[in-house]
Amino acid sequence: MFDAAELGHHIDKAAYKAAVAPLREALLDLQYEMKQMPEGKAFPVVILIDGLDGAGKGETVNLLNEWMDPRLIHTHAFGDRSDREQERPEMWRYWLALPPKGRIGIMFGSWYSEPMNKRVTGSISTARLDQAIDGINRFERMLCSEGVLLLKFWFHLTYDAQKKRLDELQADPNTRWRVRPIDRKNLERHAKIRRVAEHVLHRTSSAQAPWLVVDGSDPYYRALTVGEMLKSRIALRLQGPTYAGADVAPLTPPLDGRYLLDSLQLNQTLESADYAVALEKWQGRLARLVRSDAFRSHSVVAVFEGHDAAGKGGAIRRISAALDARQYRVVPIAAPTEEERAQPYLWRFWRQLPPRGQVTIFDRSWYGRVLVERVEGFCPEADWMRAYEEINDFERQLCAKGIILVKFWLAIDKDEQLRRFEEREATGFKRYKITPEDWRNREKWDQYAIAIHDMVDRTGSTEHPWTLVEANNKRYARIKVLKVLCEAIEGKIGRSS
Amino acid sequence: MFDAAELGHHIDKAAYKAAVAPLREALLDLQYEMKQMPEGKAFPVVILIDGLDGAGKGETVNLLNEWMDPRLIHTHAFGDRSDREQERPEMWRYWLALPPKGRIGIMFGSWYSEPMNKRVTGSISTARLDQAIDGINRFERMLCSEGVLLLKFWFHLTYDAQKKRLDELQADPNTRWRVRPIDRKNLERHAKIRRVAEHVLHRTSSAQAPWLVVDGSDPYYRALTVGEMLKSRIALRLQGPTYAGADVAPLTPPLDGRYLLDSLQLNQTLESADYAVALEKWQGRLARLVRSDAFRSHSVVAVFEGHDAAGKGGAIRRISAALDARQYRVVPIAAPTEEERAQPYLWRFWRQLPPRGQVTIFDRSWYGRVLVERVEGFCPEADWMRAYEEINDFERQLCAKGIILVKFWLAIDKDEQLRRFEEREATGFKRYKITPEDWRNREKWDQYAIAIHDMVDRTGSTEHPWTLVEANNKRYARIKVLKVLCEAIEGKIGRSS
Repeated sequence: MFDAAELGHHIDKAAYKAAVAPLREALLDLQYEMKQMPEGKAFPVVILIDGLDGAGKGETVNLLNEWMDPRLIHTHAFGDRSDREQERPEMWRYWLALPPKGRIGIMFGSWYSEPMNKRVTGSISTARLDQAIDGINRFERMLCSEGVLLLKFWFHLTYDAQKKRLDELQADPNTRWRVRPIDRKNLERHAKIRRVAEHVLHRTSSAQAPWLVVDGSDPYYRALTVGEMLKSRIALRLQGPTYAGADVAPLTPPLDGRYLLDSLQLNQTLESADYAVALEKWQGRLARLVRSDAFRSHSVVAVFEGHDAAGKGGAIRRISAALDARQYRVVPIAAPTEEERAQPYLWRFWRQLPPRGQVTIFDRSWYGRVLVERVEGFCPEADWMRAYEEINDFERQLCAKGIILVKFWLAIDKDEQLRRFEEREATGFKRYKITPEDWRNREKWDQYAIAIHDMVDRTGSTEHPWTLVEANNKRYARIKVLKVLCEAIEGKIGRSS
Repeated sequence: MFDAAELGHHIDKAAYKAAVAPLREALLDLQYEMKQMPEGKAFPVVILIDGLDGAGKGETVNLLNEWMDPRLIHTHAFGDRSDREQERPEMWRYWLALPPKGRIGIMFGSWYSEPMNKRVTGSISTARLDQAIDGINRFERMLCSEGVLLLKFWFHLTYDAQKKRLDELQADPNTRWRVRPIDRKNLERHAKIRRVAEHVLHRTSSAQAPWLVVDGSDPYYRALTVGEMLKSRIALRLQGPTYAGADVAPLTPPLDGRYLLDSLQLNQTLESADYAVALEKWQGRLARLVRSDAFRSHSVVAVFEGHDAAGKGGAIRRISAALDARQYRVVPIAAPTEEERAQPYLWRFWRQLPPRGQVTIFDRSWYGRVLVERVEGFCPEADWMRAYEEINDFERQLCAKGIILVKFWLAIDKDEQLRRFEEREATGFKRYKITPEDWRNREKWDQYAIAIHDMVDRTGSTEHPWTLVEANNKRYARIKVLKVLCEAIEGKIGRSS
């Protein structure tokens, strides 16, 4: 959920200056257009500004008011509850703050703050938090059904970035007052807040109102990200949704073009001799782990996704070589059969779930929904957008049952792919592995890059993380896969002797 | 939720026989039509059969298989979990039991049984139950988005009817085996099961997949109710929804035409002298209650709905007469203003919520959404259908905050209404109270009867029940209102001295 916001996004001052003037003009135009919509078509915009201290929430709220016509904006900051707020149901103050149709409401600290704070300080249990989440989901569904355009921004910082930010504020006598003791305390519990936020954001990201996590470390980047998103969503909505509450929030790629896969150093190396030693070591460790008594009450689901020719098959074979044939199954996923098409799309994966003590390896998986089906347009946007939620829900159920879930993305670069394609075509026994479809997919490399980025960002979490594997070197990739798999099992059942 | 199913519905044998043959033929035709739909339009039907022991669940499942082509029906009975089921996530066995497109799946004992049983036996808390409910809602939303037509039947019996049924089964040597010890035990905890079921059904009734509560006491009635519902829903769906997952389940009136208001004896009487005594007594009691210390941490929301000319205003004045003007407010609800139309429909009620120690009386209310807006077509079916959920959610939030919520429906019959209309027209100072609209509403009496029935049935509960007030006699109605209000307050703060 936060990986993409931790890439160190950046936009330089000149690019920012160049972008701001036309953005402001466009936003103003949109505001007037919103205001002039006839009653049946008018809609309000609700913007939630939430996130970590020092991540630029306040600055962004000020900026939005500066950029746009503030007479058409209702800004509300929610802090401790007044007496009259305490006497009413929790949601009362938010209801009263809703902007009317044709206006924009900015909620600085929203209905998310209280339940999250209570969970972070331990005053409520996870089950109680989930009850609050359920209430929030009902409320937001109602808002969307009533035609509200709801935009949810979460301002994120890494621990280091947050510490740096607070230190800077404190060092300057003019801004020292802004660092409250609670901000320091929250820095100390950064990891806990991140975990609770991930829990909440995962469960409240919907196709209609997904969270947009904003890297708060660069003021230009975060300001433009919010402004551009606001512009594109209002413009889209002004064209009219096909039916009430049906508009799906389009995902937008990072403004600075930095994708998650870009952060990888694909050319890791591993010499042949070192590889042989490492392979023996990790295969042996895996073999002992899955034969241990402790493993009998667990099972493994391993997901392999990756670029075409990235070496999924080879990596899978290095795993299966360590296993007893009765203990594992490799499930290759191709286009669905007629039987599978007659069922909800997750059905064919549900029925492959392993019993205890078993390993199931998916060679491609349910992620096809948000990769090939998205890029090729095999299903409507509304369907693949809801898939993020549904997949997270599915994987949570696996983890809750003690299933050890590992997910690998094997990444190669475009040149390496070309080299492998040509090698496959030149080598007789490899020729069956290359098809015209592979060449067609390759032409859509950039579209896939966006889809992969969104997939990893929206379905990765502490509980079921993605492992991005640098795979230009096959030996390196295979060892990394084995190692991560072993460590994931050990994380659940402890180190085997 | 269960009131309408406790009216003692009945269909006699002759009427049943006459209805069954054409129903079977229609169902068979629909099955073949479903089967022949082209792949892009085909859909599966999932029927949940849940409810109390002895309410005819098994008989209904058998009957459906007998009436229709069983080759196109997949019936699954879920009991204790097998080993292989225990090794997988909870929902695994239900996923595997999903029928393919073009087929009907009957789930006898569904994903609801386990969490409900666990709550009834106290092995999970309400918060944990709510987590399970959240999972169920996510699952069912996914099914509907994937095009599944989901029908949920809850077979209900009153305690007396359930006891009678078990006694009958036990008395006959041929059926004695069907009464298990657990059935007797469940009879003992009938009230508890009813409470948990109400909690769950309220939170899982959606516009797309609302619960249909079936009176299980009459075999003919329950069989025809399920069969006719199945027929109408499949037929409607075959015409095609406007978009995936968008079809709203139409509510159907009870087959035997017995509505909730029909159960009332409207001609209760109260003599003038008795009225004067009772009025003094209850107004005095109310006055003491709202002035007590204990009341300072509570507040009252009183909702008045009823037929035109049923005496809402008079009843409200008998309450306000007992109160200090600073302590109460009467909020008359008419057509929404422009300001109110620019907000979600519940907004104008949220902002009228009283602070502690205060009484707010709504003369008409949020129920206009499912009454006048439904009958007059002021909003689309999808909007008023989701209003039941949203209203229940709203009222739960009031109760959770300690607000004492009382809801009155003042009922008169059609003759009494005519008498009062004519009297109003004849009496100078009452003439302002009667408008052409009242006469127009009167013409839609029967449509309102259905809307009232559905409203009371779908928004009444133990926590926030409807009080149906027999109001042909104004004196009787006023005293009943005062009494119920006093007792509701006493239920929360205890009897005042």
